[in-house]
Order: sequence, then C-alpha cells, then structure tokens
Amino acid sequence: MKMIIAIVQDKDSNNLNNAFVEADVRATKLATTGGFLRSGNTTFMIGIEDERVAEVLALIKHASSKRAEYITPPVNVEGQVERTYPVEVEVGGATVFVLPVEQFFHF
Amino acid sequence: MKMIIAIVQDKDSNNLNNAFVEADVRATKLATTGGFLRSGNTTFMIGIEDERVAEVLALIKHASSKRAEYITPPVNVEGQVERTYPVEVEVGGATVFVLPVEQFFHF
Amino acid sequence: MKMIIAIVQDKDSNNLNNAFVEADVRATKLATTGGFLRSGNTTFMIGIEDERVAEVLALIKHASSKRAEYITPPVNVEGQVERTYPVEVEVGGATVFVLPVEQFFHF
Ligand code: NI
Ligand code: NI
Ligand code: NI
Repeated sequence: MKMIIAIVQDKDSNNLNNAFVEADVRATKLATTGGFLRSGNTTFMIGIEDERVAEVLALIKHASSKRAEYITPPVNVEGQVERTYPVEVEVGGATVFVLPVEQFFHF
Repeated sequence: MKMIIAIVQDKDSNNLNNAFVEADVRATKLATTGGFLRSGNTTFMIGIEDERVAEVLALIKHASSKRAEYITPPVNVEGQVERTYPVEVEVGGATVFVLPVEQFFHF
Repeated sequence: MKMIIAIVQDKDSNNLNNAFVEADVRATKLATTGGFLRSGNTTFMIGIEDERVAEVLALIKHASSKRAEYITPPVNVEGQVERTYPVEVEVGGATVFVLPVEQFFHF
C-alpha cells in the first residue's frame, strides 16, 4: 500500500478525477488554498496497492502533464481586429509524491 | 511517532472527534471535498507516539466501523400508513493509513 | 526528497508563507478546520530535497516558535483608566512532521 499525493492545476482537476473514477481508483481531494506559487492547484490523496502505483502515475501524467497549447490572442487596434499569430503557452504540470504506508485498515 | 490519516463518514465525525478529545489525542481535520466515491467524508490527520497507535486505531474502529442499522421505512399508500418491516442498511466505515514519521518537532 | 507537514498558529501563517517565498520553498496550504485543540491553526505541506530539510525547519522555527509576548491589559474602573503592568502571554508554537518520500515526480 502506498499513499500518492498529487498536486495538479485546477484546469486538469476534473479530467483527472474522471480518470480515477473510470479506473476505480479511490481519491480524496484536499481543499488547498494556493501556496504562493501554487494558486489554482488541486491536491489529490490516493491510497493504492503497490502493484497499481505505476497505473495511477500514468493516469496523472496523462491528465495533467506540462504541455504547450497554442492560443491566438485577439488584437483590437482602433476598432479594427487585426490578424494575429498563434502563441505557445505552457499549461498543466503535476507534482507527485509517493509515500510509504506502514499499515492500512478498512474498518 | 506515526502519522495516522483516517477518512470516515461525516455522520461519525463528531463522535470520533469527541473520542479524540476524551483520550487527549491531538487531531487535525482536513477539509476534503468528496473524492467521487467519498462524498460526505471527513479526513483526520493525527500525529501520535508509536505506543499509542493501537489505542487510536481502536478509537477510530469504535466510532466509525461499517455496521448495519435497521430503519423502518414509512410507507404511505393512498393516505393510509401501512405496517412496514425494518430494513437493514450499511452505515459508517473508515479507511485508515499509518505513515512512518522520520522526525518530529515541537517548536 | 522529504515531505514536511507543519501545523502553525494562524497568526504566524503569513510570516511563514513570506519566508517560504523568499527562500524559494514551495509550500501548499491545507485547509484545516480546527481539530479541537488546534482551532486557529494553519497546515503547510512542503516537498523538499533532503539537503534543504534543515533550512526549512529553521524557517518554521524562526517564524512560529512558541514565545512569550508582553501585553499591557487596559483596565477601566469606573470611567478611569488605571495604570497596569505588562502581562506575559504565550503565543505561537509549531508541530512539525518530516515524512519519508519513496518517489517524486514532476510531470
Ligand atoms: Ni486522454
Ligand atoms: Ni461508544
Ligand atoms: Ni524574523
């Protein structure tokens, strides 16, 4: 048994939650008020059997990896919309800790 | 020193809190927004000396074990209350992790 | 890599947060509803490299140690403010756990 703590961006939180549901992974969402550098993040706490750790890590990686997205910023100069070019922005990213568990009980 | 993380049903949360107070066990309640399968749950974080782990586990088990309760559902057919029979429902249940602690400080 | 869990008094929370920012220590604040004996407390969760554990502990100790403060309580007897003497009160205090981390990922 391990405890996995995953801190992901809010925007990836729903997708990850759905992935956990589909995979029958039991996750508890901790209410976290953004540490200074982490505003807009969500923390999941997951208790999982050793043999499923890799699977959970893969779900987290798939749903919330740091990645590039392209947005085309609107530009409006003196009432006229100019053509603009797509700009790459970085979104997502997850910080994940796997903690040892000494004992596990289900009462 | 161990850290015990206990996730219990909301309905058992007050009883468990009171049990901790009586036993002089210091518990911190984490605000958790229900993981998909765990809505209506409360998470306690407890730091405890090794020799008291069994005691804390017993408190959690006593206050929040999965158990049967019998309810007699009211049935009202065409304005008449019919005799009904008690129905068994499952309530409670706790998921508990005991984590190792490498260092502990009280500043 | 270690996970440090620090429970401090609300009144020390901002100072500690600022100290973490200055030192470039990434901390996540857990929303904790006061365990019975811990109302008015804030819980920080910090993931940190082994070689920086002592530094983080020093920051916590500096910002939130139990300490004496002197207050001069106002006394107002029948419309007259009497001279009073400073009274020592204890403020602050931190409970800190250092947990082992088996694996750490940044996706
Ligand atoms: Ni996908
Ligand atoms: Ni009882
Ligand atoms: Ni200072």
